[in-house]
Amino acid sequence: MLYLVGLGLSDETDITIKGLEIVKKASRVYLEAYTSILLVDQSVLESYYGRSIVVADREMVESNSDEILRDADKVDVAFLVVGDPFGATTHTDLVIRARELGIAVKSVPNASIMSGIGAAGLQLYNFGQTVSMVFFTDNWRPASFYDRIKENRSIGLHTLVLLDIKVKEQSLENLARGRKIFEPPRYMTVGTCASQMLEIEEEKGEGVYGPDSLAIGAARVGGKTEKFVAGTLKELCDSDDALGPPLHSMVLLGTRTHELEHEYVREFAVNKETWDRIWKADYGKQ
Amino acid sequence: MLYLVGLGLSDETDITIKGLEIVKKASRVYLEAYTSILLVDQSVLESYYGRSIVVADREMVESNSDEILRDADKVDVAFLVVGDPFGATTHTDLVIRARELGIAVKSVPNASIMSGIGAAGLQLYNFGQTVSMVFFTDNWRPASFYDRIKENRSIGLHTLVLLDIKVKEQSLENLARGRKIFEPPRYMTVGTCASQMLEIEEEKGEGVYGPDSLAIGAARVGGKTEKFVAGTLKELCDSDDALGPPLHSMVLLGTRTHELEHEYVREFAVNKETWDRIWKADYGKQ
Repeated sequence: MLYLVGLGLSDETDITIKGLEIVKKASRVYLEAYTSILLVDQSVLESYYGRSIVVADREMVESNSDEILRDADKVDVAFLVVGDPFGATTHTDLVIRARELGIAVKSVPNASIMSGIGAAGLQLYNFGQTVSMVFFTDNWRPASFYDRIKENRSIGLHTLVLLDIKVKEQSLENLARGRKIFEPPRYMTVGTCASQMLEIEEEKGEGVYGPDSLAIGAARVGGKTEKFVAGTLKELCDSDDALGPPLHSMVLLGTRTHELEHEYVREFAVNKETWDRIWKADYGKQ
Repeated sequence: MLYLVGLGLSDETDITIKGLEIVKKASRVYLEAYTSILLVDQSVLESYYGRSIVVADREMVESNSDEILRDADKVDVAFLVVGDPFGATTHTDLVIRARELGIAVKSVPNASIMSGIGAAGLQLYNFGQTVSMVFFTDNWRPASFYDRIKENRSIGLHTLVLLDIKVKEQSLENLARGRKIFEPPRYMTVGTCASQMLEIEEEKGEGVYGPDSLAIGAARVGGKTEKFVAGTLKELCDSDDALGPPLHSMVLLGTRTHELEHEYVREFAVNKETWDRIWKADYGKQ
């Protein structure tokens, strides 16, 4: 059996009882560690679970999945995924490959950022499609998020923005020379996300959002030091110190809001007067 | 401290380690049991947690929350919620009341149907806003879901439909006579949901969807007997036997789909030929 086990969002105690029982009994345990991370190290997980863990990087999962699935028709293999197994990143290709090999699959759900973001105080009902924001470079500034946000905002919906993480990345030089030397991990902050968003709005000029649009920055959702900062996009450009260490996510508000959400989120506002004024003028209309 | 603890989707082993530690230590433990249910009885939870639980019905949570919050500035109170504390139903009002009373609040995330539905094989990124479907009566057939689905479909997005549950409901007669006699619980099935949807489409005639629109019925997501059935809305009208006992949910597909989703979900199709034919004609276009 292949078990896809969700680990939740923050530390070793976020696994479910059901998930932990599977991890303890499985013949082999893999940890998918390239699309998201927990806030604790692998060694903490290993000592808590009482198991050694093989870290599965993108190359392994995408090109060498048969090694992960080896003998899984006879023994139990646990594939651990931060968040929910089918959350922000799906592992449908691994499941399809298992099916082809006649291997049974079960998944153990857990909190995903896509539902965990509800702790910011906005109704999950009113979220539209989710978008991703990658680190811009001089030559590469993918802006497909802009049209998605435009669609969401056209019908009043909030947008969850998932922020890039770079782990096990090689510099162009090391890549060219075939040197397996990896750069230190980088995690996008809300400040970078907000400024990249404003940069694209400036370029496109369609008025999908602007410096005064309301948003919520979220850090370490579900963790002991969970933190939310609410404000305009312009204010959030400077919110990194307030938010603290990774992981960060962001929500851009849609206009379909409820007075209860106003009151709830206001608690996190950088500047309550600004928050109230803009909310009153532009939100809660639908 | 008030702890909002998510219980996950199916049974007593879906609580996280973090959540269980809080439940074991709390002075009082409440279970919110009117917006969703686990697939096991309260007595199973009590014996597994080693704690007695006070079931909090809607009246208690909405009108008597100060009893739940009593002394929570000095002792720990655990308020258990099926799914995620901020998932399909938010408990923002309870948190706001706690803030007013100077009570600190922490929440423990868990799987919600809003992310758990990813196990059906559609990318969670491409879901629009979530809608609810209530049991129609002769005089009451609320159809606000129709316009929401229209909005989602206009931009190619999937729609998660959450199905009504009726627990602790009184008949009109018992209500009128003030008799606290409750009807047996009722849980909407995918079959009822699909036929109510078609009824409203027939009435409105805007062609938002039709008998040949593709959808997925989901039963007991995250549970040992989790089951998905994919087909047209017309086929899903007759899928209740295949899906089995509650809880059910449904997804109406948007047209923005990926070939991998086609292949993944096809496994659940009532009729694979129909599924392939309609998919090829109408989906995967965006």
